[in-house]
Amino acid sequence: MKKYCFGADIGGTTVKLGLFDTEGNVLDKWEIKTYTENEGTAILPDIAAAILTKIEERKLNLEEIAGIGVGVPGPVSIDGIVPHTANLGWGYKEVTRELSERTGLPCKAGNDANVAALGEMWMGGAKGHKDVLLLTLGTGVGGGIIINGKILTGAHGAGGEVGHIHVEDNIEEHCGCGNQGCLEQFASATGIARLGREELAKSDEPSLLREGEVTAKAVFDALKAGDTLAERVVERFGKYLGTAISIMAGVLDPEVIVIGGGVSKAGEILLDYVRKYYRPYVYKSSRDTEFALAQLGNDAGIYGCAKLVLD
Amino acid sequence: MKKYCFGADIGGTTVKLGLFDTEGNVLDKWEIKTYTENEGTAILPDIAAAILTKIEERKLNLEEIAGIGVGVPGPVSIDGIVPHTANLGWGYKEVTRELSERTGLPCKAGNDANVAALGEMWMGGAKGHKDVLLLTLGTGVGGGIIINGKILTGAHGAGGEVGHIHVEDNIEEHCGCGNQGCLEQFASATGIARLGREELAKSDEPSLLREGEVTAKAVFDALKAGDTLAERVVERFGKYLGTAISIMAGVLDPEVIVIGGGVSKAGEILLDYVRKYYRPYVYKSSRDTEFALAQLGNDAGIYGCAKLVLD
Repeated sequence: MKKYCFGADIGGTTVKLGLFDTEGNVLDKWEIKTYTENEGTAILPDIAAAILTKIEERKLNLEEIAGIGVGVPGPVSIDGIVPHTANLGWGYKEVTRELSERTGLPCKAGNDANVAALGEMWMGGAKGHKDVLLLTLGTGVGGGIIINGKILTGAHGAGGEVGHIHVEDNIEEHCGCGNQGCLEQFASATGIARLGREELAKSDEPSLLREGEVTAKAVFDALKAGDTLAERVVERFGKYLGTAISIMAGVLDPEVIVIGGGVSKAGEILLDYVRKYYRPYVYKSSRDTEFALAQLGNDAGIYGCAKLVLD
Repeated sequence: MKKYCFGADIGGTTVKLGLFDTEGNVLDKWEIKTYTENEGTAILPDIAAAILTKIEERKLNLEEIAGIGVGVPGPVSIDGIVPHTANLGWGYKEVTRELSERTGLPCKAGNDANVAALGEMWMGGAKGHKDVLLLTLGTGVGGGIIINGKILTGAHGAGGEVGHIHVEDNIEEHCGCGNQGCLEQFASATGIARLGREELAKSDEPSLLREGEVTAKAVFDALKAGDTLAERVVERFGKYLGTAISIMAGVLDPEVIVIGGGVSKAGEILLDYVRKYYRPYVYKSSRDTEFALAQLGNDAGIYGCAKLVLD
């Protein structure tokens, strides 16, 4: 009878770790540094050591541990193989095999945005659902898709990479991915700030945004204070994101659409502007599909990792 | 040991029926008329009678029949329940329960475009793959998505309804679904013909398209004969469809993208124009994803229906 599982969400600077019971309660939560030096060879040994230490500390019985789920910031195959992950220094790496050998526990791996979606489904904003579209609006735009309770991995581990869908022909700047006109260029924190600067440059109209650094947070704060220029910025953001989500819903027909990441701290008002452009464009079957804010914040990953090994 | 299965693909004018062995070989294929009068109450009894007659004719052993798969031109839930299907006259209907009671055989049901995708995966253009995006370009644009060998049904039975994703803001005409700017308005046979008429009205430039009725077939025939006006029409079609598929691939990351329906009879040249706009816009992981033409034509549905009951 399994009672516990571990989640390890690997980021570029820290690895978040969590010990859960099989009901989804977090029993312990901690972080270790991610050492990316020497092609990131220390990362998996460090995770294995951290987990084995925790097992000893808490005197857990190995028989009662379902395993370790791992979130990786890049594509991962269904077999837990990573072709390369630039920001961890990794080339080809058999993540689950190596971690399993080092701990003696079953391991599963998933892309970080996908496991975050699984976490929100298990214990967060999409709890009770099994067809979920999650968008994470942070420095970039990430996405995770759950179909019938399972992660949509995709043929090249790029399922749900919706930050790079094409939404605008008229743009000179390139996205980090090399393409032009990606959703990420308009709906990420960076993208919203850029839209803000563009709108400021168009006129001398007074705006709260002229008073400090133009950030996504400043744009939403100004909107809430009644700033008309900030409202135009959020309208543009809403049109790009709402239309893009209407297309994703046309493909997937999800039960619930969850928005997370730093930008989602703006709250319900963000969903209002997204829905405004979602509803007129989406196919009628999905017109009333529920929108929700993510609830687990930076912990979504460790929840999803833990859930991975329970499935 | 099961040896046989039946497929019944219900259309607005005929029901296509097929008897298959479990290896995917078609043993018999026939059609009956679809009687939509009296809220379509005769449709399922007619199908049941046709199949029972066939079983008797061929002296099949009921024990050896895996069941009957049914394709419905509208949304169907995973339990085989149809909320309504306008073009069959149906209101709420428990399709699989009724057909199962009338035949004594296990039944499963799916949306017609989705089962067509399953058919192409089993024995057609996507054979050997398990993550498939199928687009059917006919009078309208239909779609079917297979993830890990299973149909993506969606929360409201509208998974893969990609004909109605929004691709153009500047259009006055409404789509049949009520929205404006749907993919179907540009990439269906009707949509291509409309683009053709638009292009003809813009100038007096000589074109083969001025010589008869402007149809999708006429446009592709003129393109193959070197007609420059027809080429501009196909460029516009290719940009709408190629960009839209790049977005779908950004969401799904499929192994193969299959194009079927009457328009696909134009052949490889159609794929060339679609790929031209797909490749620069799609996320890098999916840049070299295979495109294929559908191979089963109007039989894709009965193949997919039969496969439904084998899974």
